[in-house]
Parts: sequence; C-alpha cells; structure tokens
Amino acid sequence: MSVSEPLSILANTLIAQKQTISAAESCTGGGIAYAFTSMDGSSQWFQQSWVTYSNESKTQALGVSHSLISTHGAVSCEVVEAMAAGACERSGADWGVATSGIAGPGGGTAEKPVGTVWFALACRETQTVKSCHQLFSGSREAVREQAITYAIELANSMVSKAN
Amino acid sequence: MSVSEPLSILANTLIAQKQTISAAESCTGGGIAYAFTSMDGSSQWFQQSWVTYSNESKTQALGVSHSLISTHGAVSCEVVEAMAAGACERSGADWGVATSGIAGPGGGTAEKPVGTVWFALACRETQTVKSCHQLFSGSREAVREQAITYAIELANSMVSKAN
Repeated sequence: MSVSEPLSILANTLIAQKQTISAAESCTGGGIAYAFTSMDGSSQWFQQSWVTYSNESKTQALGVSHSLISTHGAVSCEVVEAMAAGACERSGADWGVATSGIAGPGGGTAEKPVGTVWFALACRETQTVKSCHQLFSGSREAVREQAITYAIELANSMVSKAN
Repeated sequence: MSVSEPLSILANTLIAQKQTISAAESCTGGGIAYAFTSMDGSSQWFQQSWVTYSNESKTQALGVSHSLISTHGAVSCEVVEAMAAGACERSGADWGVATSGIAGPGGGTAEKPVGTVWFALACRETQTVKSCHQLFSGSREAVREQAITYAIELANSMVSKAN
C-alpha cells in the first residue's frame, strides 16, 4: 500500500498539533486503520480503532443506540455520526473517522444502492460531528478502496481546516 | 486484495460450523480484518475486531494487564495471548486471532529484531490460547503483508483441526 499525499499531510498535521485520530469502520473493514499504520511513526498520532461490522458491535463497542440503528439503518447519517463520536470518546482521540456503507455485491436497495457509503468525522475539541455520503461504482474491492481514499481525504481536509 | 485459498477455506469452515472469529491487531493494523471483510458474506462469520496499536489501548479495549505489558513487553507471547483471549471474550466470537510485532523500520532490538511478530489464536469452546512467533524479512509493508498471510493460515489450520 503506497502512502497517498492526503495521508502524508494528515499525519504531518496531527504530529505538528500533537493530536491523534481513531477510526470506527464498517464497510471499509479495517482498511483505514491499515492505511494509517502503513506509515512509519504512526504510533505518534494513531492509538486504536474499531472494526464494527455487525449492528450489535456498533452498540457494544461504540455506544451506538439500538433505536438509532433500527430507526435509520446501519448505513445512515445518524449511525455513522454516532460511530465517529463513539470512536472519539472511547479512544480519547482528538478526531474520530467512521464509515458505514454497502460494498456489495449484495445488500443494496432502491433507496441505498450498492456503493452507498456514509462518512463522519468527529472533533473532540468542538464536540461536533460532520457527515456526508457518496455513491461509488465498481466491484466490492473498488467500492472499499474508494471509500478508504475518500475517508482519508475527508479527515485530512477537516483536520487541516481546524488547525 | 485477492482472496487466498486459506482465507476461503477458513470462511467455509466457519460458515459450516456456524462459528465466528474476531481479531486484535497491533502491527498488522487492521489488515487481517480488511482481508476477512474482502469476502462477500463475511458478516456470517465476522462481526467485530480491534486495532490496538498503543499499550494503553491493549489494556483498555482488550483487558491486557499493565503488568503483563511492562514485564514482557507488548511484542511477547504473553501479551499476544492475552490480546487473542480478550478479543474472543469481548466480542463473544468462537475464535480470536491476535498479532503483535515490530514492522519496522525502527523499533527493533537485539532480542526482538525488526520483523519479529507474535501470533495467537484463542478458542472459546476449549478456553485455550495457542501462540507462536515468526521472524519476517523485508520492508515494513512486506513484514505486515507476511504477518497477515501467516495469521490467516494459522487461523485456518487451527479452526480446521478443531472441526
């Protein structure tokens, strides 16, 4: 895995600000953490993260409420924001990035087709969470790779803006 | 990421036995979970895992005792076994696989050179944990990729033997 420019900038910003980031991953399945830790010295700004694939684990590990999941579904603005906030809070990190989506090939619906991925970034200092969603195309592997890249770009953009 | 034969066999065995596996990753940084979830249908046998990069997160998220880490070091038989047992217990999975190692390029010592990786597999049914270590060569990326492959082969071998 090669280190992308946004990842390199994100790492340098976090090091300069003495900040840390955590992740809560559903559809990306650990790929964001794997990208983070591809960088030598990542222990300066990354300490821990979660892969919460099942609904139950989102609740148990990150504190996402059952009612939020049953009302909005796991792939939703509300749940991904709660995942990011949970990662931030439970890790003690300054930032928490989260993903929840439908990588395919199964699982898509008319409302949430395969390739739909929700992203959120939580900020400890301001106690705010921002989210957005994207619709990616291609295979399961392609959707997941695009989601990892997008999550890193989003984190880099928001961390840079805040500092 | 292509699906290796051991991963494919592991998935089929877990599905046939209605069993699940979790992971606790240090040096592999989420790469085992990312490989698991590269498979369509992995939600049948994989629900959650942890990336515990710092010592504190190994304690907080997985219940590895501070004294175990300070006595033996994070890259040790004792700590990786406690990580695997913690993943098994806290996820409720039938199996827990864990890694802790020195991916490099820094961090190596005469006793634990760069490329040293400890692996453990915990089994819920028998309440046992088995561990072993390997010394891999090559770059940080090469060490991590070999460690992911080895962890999956180890899990496949032990899960197959038990079933």
